[in-house]
Amino acid sequence: MPRGGRVTSCQTERVSDVEAPAPAPRRGRPGYDRDRILEVAVDVFIEQGYDATSVAALAARLGLSKSALYHHFASKEELLSVALDEALGGLEGVLREEGATQGTPGERLGYVLERAVRVLVEKLPYVTLLLRVRGNSDVERAALERRRAFDHEVTALVRAAQSEGSVRADIDASVATRLTFGMVNSIVEWYRPAGSESGADLAADVMTVVLDGLRTR
Amino acid sequence: MPRGGRVTSCQTERVSDVEAPAPAPRRGRPGYDRDRILEVAVDVFIEQGYDATSVAALAARLGLSKSALYHHFASKEELLSVALDEALGGLEGVLREEGATQGTPGERLGYVLERAVRVLVEKLPYVTLLLRVRGNSDVERAALERRRAFDHEVTALVRAAQSEGSVRADIDASVATRLTFGMVNSIVEWYRPAGSESGADLAADVMTVVLDGLRTR
Repeated sequence: MPRGGRVTSCQTERVSDVEAPAPAPRRGRPGYDRDRILEVAVDVFIEQGYDATSVAALAARLGLSKSALYHHFASKEELLSVALDEALGGLEGVLREEGATQGTPGERLGYVLERAVRVLVEKLPYVTLLLRVRGNSDVERAALERRRAFDHEVTALVRAAQSEGSVRADIDASVATRLTFGMVNSIVEWYRPAGSESGADLAADVMTVVLDGLRTR
Repeated sequence: MPRGGRVTSCQTERVSDVEAPAPAPRRGRPGYDRDRILEVAVDVFIEQGYDATSVAALAARLGLSKSALYHHFASKEELLSVALDEALGGLEGVLREEGATQGTPGERLGYVLERAVRVLVEKLPYVTLLLRVRGNSDVERAALERRRAFDHEVTALVRAAQSEGSVRADIDASVATRLTFGMVNSIVEWYRPAGSESGADLAADVMTVVLDGLRTR
């Protein structure tokens, strides 16, 4: 669900609204309809691929006429833009939270890692869609640019943690960040919230592997 | 390149030939032509998507007529099958190597992890294609089945290492394997062999993060 979930994300939402590459004008009735349309559209984009999905197919899946769909979203691209912003806004919001801005670099890095996994789990379809984006349009390129900016902020945090001595310095900070977020992002491939592993368990497991490793000491 | 590279993989090749879901009959002249066609086809499949690529577009890219292309490969699906087998055969071959079958579970796990990264780097386009497969045809479903079987063997190794006490037991073996190979597989998204990080460096970095973690002790 685009709104709600376990994140107390007033700030996140605000950041994402400000930073959205194509701000989404709220057309027609806000609230349930728009959120439900977005949710279903994201599922269809994931199943069939964004490029391969027609507005007619989307409308049919929603049981709406095309004009009713256009009442809420001006275009297929606006749906994509709002969906990607949902994922990116969530991740960017983490970097603005107190745990990510206060404390030692090592503490802040641990916080960001834990929260990034939680956001991924809470916004699973949106992050899944984000990770499939290849840069085929302006909206996709803007999303890739925001992903890169997020990665750069985390890399800087890894580098600061290396400088203070809390993170090993024998791995390049950029490689360490890529490997870490490679693990985090791979979760969309298999994780289903209905399973036995909660988002909190999963976040704890990722932190354990990335920070302490699998090998017993 | 499908043949060659740093792996001494006679056994790998044998295993992959035996286990290929649709054994590839060698049509026409073997050797350079067939390998080059496969290589270019894989690049095009990655760029444009397998489903979206026509045989006519492939032939045009190769500067061949469609009938010349069919002289080497019976169908687009045979190209896919051979390409996926290249990646899967490489990974499966690792599990048959001495380092993966002898020694303690902990040693064997470390060996498999290191070699899997090396195979991924050596067969980068083939593994990239494998990781995009979603199960849209019998060939794709057979490839997913072989991936699952590989994962199961590694999970069993993680479990054995947990039993002997060399790998922490507070993370489910299956989750640990998924997170680990999530990190490994993510390498295809950004790694380019021409960069400053060699395959050996990368394999060492992955082992360090997964086995020992980023945090200094």
